[in-house]
Parts: sequence; structure tokens; C-alpha cells
Amino acid sequence: MTESREANPLHAIFNAGSVAFVGASNKPTTMGTIQMLNTLRGNFPGRVIPVHPRLERVLGEKAYPNLRALPEPVDLAVLVVPTDAVLPVVEDAIARGIRNLVITSAGFREGGEDGQKREALLREVTRRNGIRFVGPNCIGVLNTKSGLNTTFFPYLHAPGPLGLASQSGTYVTQVLDLLARWGIGLSKAISVGNSVSIDLADCLDYFADDPDTRAVALYIEGIADGRRFLAAARRCTARKPVVALYVGGTEGGSRSGRSHTGALGGPDEIYDGLFAQAGIQRVKTVADLYTFGWALATQAVPNGNRMVILTHSGGPATSMADAVYRHGMTLPRFPSALEAQIRSMLPATASAANPIDLTFSLDIKLLQEKLPPLLLGQDFVDGLLMHGLQGSTFFTDVSRIAGDLFSLPLDQMSEFARLAVEPLCRMPQEFQKPIVMSCFYDRRDNVVRTLQDAHIPVFDTPERAVAAMGALVRYGEFRRRLASREGPDARTPV
Amino acid sequence: MTESREANPLHAIFNAGSVAFVGASNKPTTMGTIQMLNTLRGNFPGRVIPVHPRLERVLGEKAYPNLRALPEPVDLAVLVVPTDAVLPVVEDAIARGIRNLVITSAGFREGGEDGQKREALLREVTRRNGIRFVGPNCIGVLNTKSGLNTTFFPYLHAPGPLGLASQSGTYVTQVLDLLARWGIGLSKAISVGNSVSIDLADCLDYFADDPDTRAVALYIEGIADGRRFLAAARRCTARKPVVALYVGGTEGGSRSGRSHTGALGGPDEIYDGLFAQAGIQRVKTVADLYTFGWALATQAVPNGNRMVILTHSGGPATSMADAVYRHGMTLPRFPSALEAQIRSMLPATASAANPIDLTFSLDIKLLQEKLPPLLLGQDFVDGLLMHGLQGSTFFTDVSRIAGDLFSLPLDQMSEFARLAVEPLCRMPQEFQKPIVMSCFYDRRDNVVRTLQDAHIPVFDTPERAVAAMGALVRYGEFRRRLASREGPDARTPV
Repeated sequence: MTESREANPLHAIFNAGSVAFVGASNKPTTMGTIQMLNTLRGNFPGRVIPVHPRLERVLGEKAYPNLRALPEPVDLAVLVVPTDAVLPVVEDAIARGIRNLVITSAGFREGGEDGQKREALLREVTRRNGIRFVGPNCIGVLNTKSGLNTTFFPYLHAPGPLGLASQSGTYVTQVLDLLARWGIGLSKAISVGNSVSIDLADCLDYFADDPDTRAVALYIEGIADGRRFLAAARRCTARKPVVALYVGGTEGGSRSGRSHTGALGGPDEIYDGLFAQAGIQRVKTVADLYTFGWALATQAVPNGNRMVILTHSGGPATSMADAVYRHGMTLPRFPSALEAQIRSMLPATASAANPIDLTFSLDIKLLQEKLPPLLLGQDFVDGLLMHGLQGSTFFTDVSRIAGDLFSLPLDQMSEFARLAVEPLCRMPQEFQKPIVMSCFYDRRDNVVRTLQDAHIPVFDTPERAVAAMGALVRYGEFRRRLASREGPDARTPV
Repeated sequence: MTESREANPLHAIFNAGSVAFVGASNKPTTMGTIQMLNTLRGNFPGRVIPVHPRLERVLGEKAYPNLRALPEPVDLAVLVVPTDAVLPVVEDAIARGIRNLVITSAGFREGGEDGQKREALLREVTRRNGIRFVGPNCIGVLNTKSGLNTTFFPYLHAPGPLGLASQSGTYVTQVLDLLARWGIGLSKAISVGNSVSIDLADCLDYFADDPDTRAVALYIEGIADGRRFLAAARRCTARKPVVALYVGGTEGGSRSGRSHTGALGGPDEIYDGLFAQAGIQRVKTVADLYTFGWALATQAVPNGNRMVILTHSGGPATSMADAVYRHGMTLPRFPSALEAQIRSMLPATASAANPIDLTFSLDIKLLQEKLPPLLLGQDFVDGLLMHGLQGSTFFTDVSRIAGDLFSLPLDQMSEFARLAVEPLCRMPQEFQKPIVMSCFYDRRDNVVRTLQDAHIPVFDTPERAVAAMGALVRYGEFRRRLASREGPDARTPV
């Protein structure tokens, strides 16, 4: 376990002021070039230096033939070179006094006996020389705040409070477009690859202290050092929630993980036990990994499992109600005075019980401004689930058949809808209670976008919203168990 | 059970040549107006006649003060009127000789004691007069081929082979944008509401005979007549797959369903038994309902559970591999000659086992043209799972940082990618084996769009693709059990 934040090797990597890319060129079809471009043309303020044996300039920057030739050491070197070239380049880095690396190159433990020998040598050389590195067989790191991005994909979304550490590079790179579409923002992400020097335990240790990270998502194919992982995870989950997708527990997952990152997966039960001891929530799909992580990173920890459902659609109300019970939560009945008060506000065909279903009603004031604070203000309500808020996409769809009948232009109606949702955006903060939503429209809709950008989770289906709320409720239970076991001092604010 | 296709009341409704809308006006903010517009301004070729007590013209069409005043009977009348007005308008319909109705209006069984009396009277009057109707408290029907659309949302996607019957109107209307984004096309959809005259059994009976429907998705809050439902479902599942989402099995779902459509949900075990007897696959989320339904509607029935995974990403390969086993399927190892053949085609860091992981490789010929037919042609392969095909969105994303470095313009690169995927689009048909995919890009991507429009399911996450493949495998097992029990005559082609 790390003594201080600065002692964690990831601290120096994420805060690198200068980065050298070994293996970048001027060809946009090579991995190294794109990786360098992501940092060079992102908002990274530090120096980005290409290293190339022949080219004098790479992507407009002066290139050096090798790391030894650099006029001064860089804070971080990224290696995207053929397998055989990795060790010589590492020797160059050592010679130049470079202490932190990202080694993208593959062909190590995951690549059979030769690869295993190569990896052992790499481990030995770097350890002896005090080098810490991410990889090999990884895509490296992404810091959305500093603009450092060694991955293969540009980060196009706003930074957010979810931290990510993954034994798959794809789940921190190719997935970025999907995460942006789901409104999910990352703080920092680490593709650990074969984890020779920096592993998931280091990531957990780092995230535990990182003020930009409020929840952590882990993608795991196998853990080599369970004891170390458990210690780091315990420290992290006492401060912030951690969710993990473990895929090495079946014959298929284990076999595939071995050829991917050389990870040795163990039986599901072992990992279930490890996660339970660590206070980590296990999920079964990448969708749950990111959506649970996002809810945990953005919403207040609920005091209990008592939910209210608010919608103008009977089907989603019923799907949500069913899912609430399947996920171990309840829908308390309203006290009769409250139910009468709500009934007096609703149209005749609406349901004033819990779930509240406004049926076909365009009264957005009621749905978005009046009912949510009334409900969130009740002591017996621990969280609010909503379905069906919508703006520009709805008007666009309906305008295709009814455009000429509207008295207001499309953009004006859309803007009214967007403005009307702003008070709701502030309510999770005001009431310190979670709100999770679903909508059948996506971020093209200006209301969905506004909610998501205010860090209210809006997912694509009712059950996905309820499942994410379930993750919040379980984390609340975990925190209360922790507090009762360890006294009030353990109640570190999340 | 219906004797002939024409005898099913839905046959006359779906094939209506003329439709009257009672309750439409010129105000685009009322439900009836939008419902009429969807048929009037869709591609419905028949007559659309508004009925309004005062207006002379509605939406440009000559209006009649009531149904009695129509110059001739219409094939179908849609009622979107206040609760109290429903019975008088039904009497008008009877008087004018109109035999088929859609009753959108709410305020019946779901609305307490008064509503129950009202519904009993409606049932009695219509029965006595030989009237069949969808509803009340529903949104009616959608025929994507004829353009008849009594729902509240325009249908903006191409027709497809999935039939839908739902006790929620939302799940055939508000969900249309989502289904279009997932590339899912409907044949016909029915929102049955309170099911006083036409219920889910009638829908199953209709879909069993409908040549445009290859699979059926049901959303169920409660079934009143289990025996009738079972008989219709058995007949249907012997011909085509049926998936069902039942949400009435928990306290929350049951309570919400009661206030929504007045449905009385029963315990999960009862419904599990009913579905098992009927050969219906039960799902737990609306996402599974539609995605399983789509895979079942578009893909060949697999002969077994032996899958191959093909991707260029290790993480998705491993997630898929793990999910394959969790969903009761297997990943057979390749015979050594085949593995050697594959290995000779791949880059050194790639995995030639099953899953095949090309790692970082831009060789789309290998991924899309050479490997899929080689794999689908193997006797021991029952289906193909793929992840990661991409086109225009990928180029757009990368162009943001590398645009000036590409030698070809964006649209030309995108078009090459689209053309390269066309042979793959034909393979499910050629090999009569299912292909299901995932991609982190959506339909904005021209390759995803091309695959989806060729009716290859492309879903957003690896596990969702595998889960949908699991539904296909289970239906294959069901068909083989059915065939072995009932002899070759039962093997009606799907």
C-alpha cells in the first residue's frame, strides 16, 4: 500500500509535464501516431516529443533518433514499437534517466513461452533500475483533465468523476464513443495490460486518493496477487464505491483472458469472496460496469432502499416497479394525506399511488418542478426513479407529421423544454438524494443532454435505471455496515 | 382458436381500407390529432375520415359530426374521446354498421369501481352487437406495411419481421425511436390495453398466420384467460419464436399493473410454468424483449450451441467468451489443421484459437471477407459472434485529430468500409447460420447501418449480442424437442 499520494507511480505518470512517443510517425494508420496525436492535439499543455530513428520531424514536432538523444529526460515515455525493440528502448530510457513508461507493445506473457521469458527479463531490468511502467500489451493512460491521452481514441466528452482501470485497452478506448453517448464522463483511465509493474492494486490505491474520482470501475480478467489487491480495494471502498466486471470465471472467459493479457482467471466463487471482502460490487456486463459506475460517481448515497417512481407512461412505470422489487428495493405506499395532495394535482386517469403515472400529460411543470421536490422532501423516500422526460427529439419526431400545425417554431419549443428541466437538475444536490432516469431518446435530445450534463444518469431503458439505483442502495448498505463496525470515524464522506 | 386467418378480428383491422378518427381536431397538442396524423400523413393509401361535433374540416379533410352521419360505414373507427363519451360513440358505430374499433380512451377497469361497471357495460354492448375492438385504454395498432398507425408516434424506420403485442401503449409508441436506433424493424404492433374484446391470445393467433412476422415479442402485465392464451401460444410457437416480458410477478409490478391496465398479475412461478408449457421464452427487461425478438426474427435457427467469436479487440473477445458459457453455449476448439490455417492468415500478436482476436489490425478483408465464410462453413460451428466492425464514425472520430494526415477524404474512406461489409451481409442467408454482433458505435456509423439494414443484429455491448444469440440457441433446442415429440410434420419452417 502506498504511503502518500505522490509515492504512487501513477501520480508521476498522470501529472507528466513532458511526454516522448517512441514509435509515432507521420502515417495516420499506425497506432503510435494516433496515440501521439491524441495528446499532441488534445488540450495537453506540456511538451510532446516524438522519437523516430530516421524522421527529422514527426507531426510537426522535432524528432530525436532515440531516447538517449533527448536534450533532457521526459517525465513519461510511451513505447509503441515492435516486441523485439521494447527492451533496447527501455535501456535507452534508463540511460537517459526516464523513470516512467507506458509500454503499448504486445508479445509478452500472453504470447506463449518466448513471450513469458521476454516479460520476465523486462520485469527484472525495470525493477533493478527503479523504473515503473504501465503495460506491456496495453494502451496506457487517459487523464481527461490534463489532456494526456496515450490511447488510440480521442476523448470527445466532458471530464467526469468516474475512474476506470482495465485489463483491456478496448474498454478505455474504443468504448469512449459509447460512454459519451451514455453521458458518462471519465476522470482518469488506465489500461493496465499485462500489469508487470503497475497493476489494478496500484490503480485502486491511486483512485482512493484522487480528488477528481468519486467512483471506480474495474475490468478484470484475472488477479495475480490477491492479497495486495484486497488491501488496496479495502482502502479504496472505504472512501468511494468500486464496481468490477470479472470475466475469467468460465471456461471461455478464462481461456480468452489467457491469450489476451496472459491473465489466469480463477473460479467465480473465489472472486465473489474476494470482492465481498473488499467491498467491491461485482457486475456481469460492461453495460452494468459503466452505468453502475456512473450512478455511483454522480449520485448521493441513499439512506435506504425506499424508492418513488414518477413517469407519464404506464408501461415504464410497471417495468420499473417490477425491477425495483427484483433489485431488493421497495416502493412505499404514500401516507393518505400525501396521496390526497398528489391526487389533487393530477389528471383524472392518472395514478397518485407509488408509482405515480401521469398518463398522457404534457404538464411538465407538474412532472419536473412540482412533484420531484415534494417527493424528495419526504423522510420515507430514499431515491427517485423517473422515466420519459424529453425535448427536442420528441418535437422533431412529431414535427415530421404535424410541423405546420405548431404555433411555435421547433427550436423555441425545444428551448422551453430545456429551460423547464433546469430546476430538476439541481435537486439531487439540494436534497442529497439520488435521481436516476431512463428515456427512449438519447443525447440528440436537448433535455436528455441537459440532464446528463448535470450528472443525472439518464439510461436507455427503465430496468437499466433501476439496476443502477440498486447499485447505489447496495453501496449505502455497505457504508452503513462499515460505519457500524468501525465507529463514526470510518464514515469518510464519499 | 381462430379457424382461418380472415376470422381473426385483427385481420380486418390491419387491412382496413378506410378509417374514421373520432376525437381528432386541428390542435397538434391533443392525442387524437396526432394519432390521425400518423395515418393521414404516413403512407396509408386508404380513406382517413375525421369525426368532430363542430369542425367542418379537420386536418384538411371533410369532417362529420358523428359516426351515424358518415355517408358509408368505415372499416375501422378509432375513438379518442373522454371516458363518458365512449359508450355513446360505440352506439353510433353500431348504428352505422361499423364492426371494428380501436378505443384509446382510458377510465375503465384500471380506474376503480365506476370504471369496472363502465367496462362491463362496454363488453356487453359490443358482444351483443358483434363488434370487435382493441382497448380500451390503449393506443391501438401499427401496420408498418399498410401505413395504418393509430399510435401517438410516427413510425420512421423500415418495416421488419418482428411482431409486437403489448399491454402497454408506450412499448409500441414511445419506444419507436429507440427501436429505430437499434436497427429493429416491426411488422405489426398492437397495444391491447385492457383487452376487453381482443387480447394477447388473439394477437398470437394472428401473428402465427401473418407472413410478414417471423418472431413475436409480448409485454405482459397479467393474463386473464390462461387456457386461451396457452392454446394460442402453443400454436404460434410451433411456427415462430415468441419472447415475453412479464412484469406482474412482484409486489411492485403487480400493484402498478393493476393501476395501469387493470391487469391482475400472478406469481412468477405460475407464469414461468405457463410460458414453459407454451414454448415462450421469458425475458426480464424490455431491452432483452426487443433484442432477443429481433435476433429471433432475422436469424436462422442454429443447429446447436457451438459458437465462434471473431473480433479485433481482446476485451470484447473475453467478455463475449465469458458470456457464451454463462448463456449455456460453448466455444469449441478448432481442429489443429484449421487453427494452423487461420494462424497463417493472422498477425503475430493475434490469437488463432476460438475466440479469434486479430488485435490491432486494419485488415478488413480478413475480418469481414475471409474468416467469416471459413468459419461458418465448418460443421462444428452453429453461429458466429462478432465485435468491432466500424466505418464512418470511426473515421470521423479519428479525423478530428488526424484529418489533415489522411490521403483520402473522409467520405471516400467511409464508402470503402461500407462496400467491404456487403459480402458479410449476405452470409447469414448463404450459410443459414446466425450472425449476431456488437459495436460501440451506433447507426450514425455507415457500416453499422449497412449491417443492421441487412437484418444482421448489431447491439451496443458484447454481452447483449451473446444474450441474443442465446435466445436463438434456446429456440433451436425447443424446435428439436418439438420435432422429436411430434414427428417430422411438426417441423414447420420458421
